Amino acid sequence: MVELMRAVVKPARVPGAELRDVPIPVPSDHDVLIRVKATSMCGTDLHIFRWDNWAEENFGPTPMVFGHEYCGEVVEVGRDVARVKVGDFVSGETHIGCGHCHLCRTGRQHLCINMDLVGVTRPGCFAEYICIPEQNAWINPPDLPIDIAAIQEPFGNAVHTTLSGEIAARSTLVMGCGPIGLFSIGIARASGASPIWAVDINDYRLELARKMGATHVIDSREEDPVETIMAESDGEGAEVVLELSGAPSGIRQAFGALRVGGRISMLGLPANPFEFDFSTLIVLKGANVHGIYGRKMFDTWYRTSTLLGNGLVDVSPLITHHMPLEEFEQGMDLLLRGQAAKVILYPDSAHTGSRM
Amino acid sequence: MVELMRAVVKPARVPGAELRDVPIPVPSDHDVLIRVKATSMCGTDLHIFRWDNWAEENFGPTPMVFGHEYCGEVVEVGRDVARVKVGDFVSGETHIGCGHCHLCRTGRQHLCINMDLVGVTRPGCFAEYICIPEQNAWINPPDLPIDIAAIQEPFGNAVHTTLSGEIAARSTLVMGCGPIGLFSIGIARASGASPIWAVDINDYRLELARKMGATHVIDSREEDPVETIMAESDGEGAEVVLELSGAPSGIRQAFGALRVGGRISMLGLPANPFEFDFSTLIVLKGANVHGIYGRKMFDTWYRTSTLLGNGLVDVSPLITHHMPLEEFEQGMDLLLRGQAAKVILYPDSAHTGSRM
Amino acid sequence: MVELMRAVVKPARVPGAELRDVPIPVPSDHDVLIRVKATSMCGTDLHIFRWDNWAEENFGPTPMVFGHEYCGEVVEVGRDVARVKVGDFVSGETHIGCGHCHLCRTGRQHLCINMDLVGVTRPGCFAEYICIPEQNAWINPPDLPIDIAAIQEPFGNAVHTTLSGEIAARSTLVMGCGPIGLFSIGIARASGASPIWAVDINDYRLELARKMGATHVIDSREEDPVETIMAESDGEGAEVVLELSGAPSGIRQAFGALRVGGRISMLGLPANPFEFDFSTLIVLKGANVHGIYGRKMFDTWYRTSTLLGNGLVDVSPLITHHMPLEEFEQGMDLLLRGQAAKVILYPDSAHTGSRM
Amino acid sequence: MVELMRAVVKPARVPGAELRDVPIPVPSDHDVLIRVKATSMCGTDLHIFRWDNWAEENFGPTPMVFGHEYCGEVVEVGRDVARVKVGDFVSGETHIGCGHCHLCRTGRQHLCINMDLVGVTRPGCFAEYICIPEQNAWINPPDLPIDIAAIQEPFGNAVHTTLSGEIAARSTLVMGCGPIGLFSIGIARASGASPIWAVDINDYRLELARKMGATHVIDSREEDPVETIMAESDGEGAEVVLELSGAPSGIRQAFGALRVGGRISMLGLPANPFEFDFSTLIVLKGANVHGIYGRKMFDTWYRTSTLLGNGLVDVSPLITHHMPLEEFEQGMDLLLRGQAAKVILYPDSAHTGSRM
Repeated sequence: MVELMRAVVKPARVPGAELRDVPIPVPSDHDVLIRVKATSMCGTDLHIFRWDNWAEENFGPTPMVFGHEYCGEVVEVGRDVARVKVGDFVSGETHIGCGHCHLCRTGRQHLCINMDLVGVTRPGCFAEYICIPEQNAWINPPDLPIDIAAIQEPFGNAVHTTLSGEIAARSTLVMGCGPIGLFSIGIARASGASPIWAVDINDYRLELARKMGATHVIDSREEDPVETIMAESDGEGAEVVLELSGAPSGIRQAFGALRVGGRISMLGLPANPFEFDFSTLIVLKGANVHGIYGRKMFDTWYRTSTLLGNGLVDVSPLITHHMPLEEFEQGMDLLLRGQAAKVILYPDSAHTGSRM
Repeated sequence: MVELMRAVVKPARVPGAELRDVPIPVPSDHDVLIRVKATSMCGTDLHIFRWDNWAEENFGPTPMVFGHEYCGEVVEVGRDVARVKVGDFVSGETHIGCGHCHLCRTGRQHLCINMDLVGVTRPGCFAEYICIPEQNAWINPPDLPIDIAAIQEPFGNAVHTTLSGEIAARSTLVMGCGPIGLFSIGIARASGASPIWAVDINDYRLELARKMGATHVIDSREEDPVETIMAESDGEGAEVVLELSGAPSGIRQAFGALRVGGRISMLGLPANPFEFDFSTLIVLKGANVHGIYGRKMFDTWYRTSTLLGNGLVDVSPLITHHMPLEEFEQGMDLLLRGQAAKVILYPDSAHTGSRM
Repeated sequence: MVELMRAVVKPARVPGAELRDVPIPVPSDHDVLIRVKATSMCGTDLHIFRWDNWAEENFGPTPMVFGHEYCGEVVEVGRDVARVKVGDFVSGETHIGCGHCHLCRTGRQHLCINMDLVGVTRPGCFAEYICIPEQNAWINPPDLPIDIAAIQEPFGNAVHTTLSGEIAARSTLVMGCGPIGLFSIGIARASGASPIWAVDINDYRLELARKMGATHVIDSREEDPVETIMAESDGEGAEVVLELSGAPSGIRQAFGALRVGGRISMLGLPANPFEFDFSTLIVLKGANVHGIYGRKMFDTWYRTSTLLGNGLVDVSPLITHHMPLEEFEQGMDLLLRGQAAKVILYPDSAHTGSRM
Repeated sequence: MVELMRAVVKPARVPGAELRDVPIPVPSDHDVLIRVKATSMCGTDLHIFRWDNWAEENFGPTPMVFGHEYCGEVVEVGRDVARVKVGDFVSGETHIGCGHCHLCRTGRQHLCINMDLVGVTRPGCFAEYICIPEQNAWINPPDLPIDIAAIQEPFGNAVHTTLSGEIAARSTLVMGCGPIGLFSIGIARASGASPIWAVDINDYRLELARKMGATHVIDSREEDPVETIMAESDGEGAEVVLELSGAPSGIRQAFGALRVGGRISMLGLPANPFEFDFSTLIVLKGANVHGIYGRKMFDTWYRTSTLLGNGLVDVSPLITHHMPLEEFEQGMDLLLRGQAAKVILYPDSAHTGSRM
């Protein structure tokens, strides 16, 4: 007899999602089964919910549960599981490397060329239970608040972006203040960046940018960030740029404001190719450009754990909403309207308040 | 009474150049005066000769001598000159840093934001004499052949590009087989790169690429380099890419053939902005992009001196033509038709043959 | 007629020093003359005062003024000085590179093999005036407190040591809590290190370590730092170690507490060779050891300026004493007894209190 | 019924070894069983054979087969093996990481703190068959000569040492010309190092050093390597030093000959602590010291495969002896007397000649 659980399911390759009862997954030899305590929503989930081109090209066979930011308690482990124990409080790394390709065999499984993706190519975490390979389970200290434990995955994206090069005592621009940009501001601040310029086009986000530690906040609807930053840096620009907007105009401004010889780390994903001036903005500038994807496995998780567990970055201003899993559509709506940073969902309906 | 010398002069802001008698420059306190023994021609000289947009925007007041690749003998030194002596056999670094900006004050004067450029913003070397600051004079061993001494400046561009990251035992693509691409092939070969793919659209250059050590030569008029390289690398691509084409199609192919997590160093300068897919080619690929300009002052010169002086790279196949300075127009013509690699000019008309 | 100034002079190659009237130095073409506003005392000054072996081998011809940490106002500039102006408020870099050696020519003049040293091989700053080459003058913002401006040189040593590799979100051990160790704690804290262990054998210093941000303070007279740090790090040790003790036992403990694969930056100078286990502590550990000398010229100064000028590190707990230059012997005595961190001297007797 | 195989066994914790019939190992779920085609002898095997302190402290329970450099054909795979197939021609990585420690979880399993070692803590390859985890099997091209395939493990040590930093166009000292030193010379040569000084105290090895590409060979019984190298480098020393002697005098000379600001990679293991001058040789020199252990898994193997498979380094001068496994004692004797570089043993008595 199959046991069932509540889950948010993408039922078919069309917009929308629905709450359903589906079978609880069964762990194989190397897997762990996790009872989800808290899960947060990401831009990727919006793509899947709204069903755009990216979702059409990337999402696995429907119907399938989605969601990939979460924490929970291990309730069952497969025969070959050795490191993780039943009762461990874990978060999950989304990227599952094949273990066999050149990238996986050289310590870069976050760039695996045969990647399996939780919540995209295999079932996700908007559910009471999720099953993942042992190697993807990150063991948290038991007293880490579940809201913080749940957002370590996207926070890790920001850690990877921000700390992909020197940042202490370097002037820094954060282009784009979505959740990962806002996390990056906090990480840059905790890591000695100064000054920190933050750019966005949304008042709600710019206000959060200030709370997270940006020393200069620029609304690019009202002023040209390149001009402002140049004026505020003796015409030199920012030594470090973190590009999280994914917008062609934002990317051009990010490179425009980059100091000659500086470092730009790019995580934002523009939807389409666009026109770009390589000569001026990369070659003659002697720019160092880092494409950033995922989290280093698991160096980024260790650093994430230090930054959050030791209280170096306070993410509480960014955990803006809490609701039972059943209300996921309301969360989607808040994100779509740019009126939320991180929305936390609780599959267990008894838990509907903050867990900070 | 002013002494005169023969020189190739840009007389006015229109196409063309002419041989004239102009005053021999007078060294100031920190300068050295060099009697030019050999000088080579560069793509930049073609821009100035043909007078395109780049020349219009960058070339200094006319009439002015141009040219910036050369070697010669020091015949006079300014009052404050200490390191360089009369009689030294020197080559010249083109980039003259201001010494005061952030870049100059952090060991990166090759990226100086107030750069003075020999042969572009101040008088060049297509002449019997040239005057430069002491710090820009590189002392050669007395027995270095003058043809080799003259091409160290562009060879240094190739050193900077090729060795801006790991290359030993890494598969490498050289995109674009002009002189700097061809030098790069030789440097990559001497530095343990393997295999080495070389791409161009000119038979003459592809033949030279093979001579310099490319293990695979691809004519991109006839086959798609990305497909070929992927097929020859188990679908993984090149771990290192050196972009020297400056062409939009070449740059797209260069990134397309770059391995996930790989390094691409870009020196080629596209004339205009063009459409580019950042998501696929930089972000998701985890690419490391290095904008390359000039030569590290003077680390690149030390390495250049080792590679050429100790015989690690044989550049003789690339010194394809020799002629007196008077015949500079014939050299320009060969370069324009893609039928030469490096053309060496001798201001002293008694020297008209090879000096290898 | 020669103008005179008051100065602390080493009169002969024996212990002691005396206050004398000596000629005000005259700037040559590339020099600037600085009226000293504040100067601080360093362990090197103690060596010279007490006249130990190091002083005998390194100090220049006597009689000579010593001291090398200072700030002041530019009152005269040489003929060729271009960047610095009369009236500028400057601090001084101690290391004067020759400009001609391999190290100077590759952006590493802090390692020049023909180094001239302010206050050691040429006259220093314990005086009303000092003369240095323009390139060694660092221009401060006019509103920087003079006490802070004066200690940037030793603070820069700490910046160079602490930031010679990754430190954000890395566990860090600071071995030795003299002034540079204490600065390093503050810099590590501001740069996201966590936890931060500090080790010393002096209660006064351990108390200051705590004030500067150490999360764990270890008195190595009472407990074995290696055992304690291993116990507090799951048996793994510190990812980053900053070695500032210069003591054989401290260095052995520093390596013993270093995590496998970690980074150790060493600035402390042991007086003599001592027995060391390379196999266990470097080779098998896969350690990365950075020898640290001076300050990167001038990248370290830019970072110093950011950390101090933007208020990222509060050094006020470490500026423990202030006195007129005349009372330098009292300052020496405090330092010898380990009862001071930084002692600030004011050559102008009208200024005898704090300038924070 | 258990099947038996011939093997060289350490029968008890005393000097010596003997040829015995022992059971063929049985692969578990993640293992592969390899029929050994060729195996080479290493200094570690000598320690075990002679039974010194290191062996007493590190070798596992006796009786046990030893040896850890080999290649062979996969004849059986465990249930969970996916990448490796029966029939694959493989070599073996000696280091088996636990997969769970901080080092293993950050791509540095070669530094695992719970390491299992083939031929030291678990049965080795001086036998007809060996069983290892799938992840430790490196698949060779089918046409790689078995003698070369067998020595990739120690060659990898040399790759890791030589390529742990920049080496192209850098002057390089190889201290110690045992097999790994000799491999390092070849790798340095193939990677553009120049000049290459090689130091040893054994004529046989110095002759091989010259064959492998050393440009300067120094017998340190007859001249002081530091003096010679300084004299041959304008008093500057070697930019890169590879320390493979493991001898206190060699290590002091290696640091003494290191250029200010240079890189020294240390793989040699001194038997005991010894006196060392940290101030002069590391701190004031601004040295960068890399402790080197094992091979990066598996980046070093990819590079090894390129260097050997593509013919960049010719190791044939170093494969000096070939014999059937039965004659292992004769091989031990040659190595002890310093009259061999690599000795290859063939477990299948039909193969007793070279397999290059």
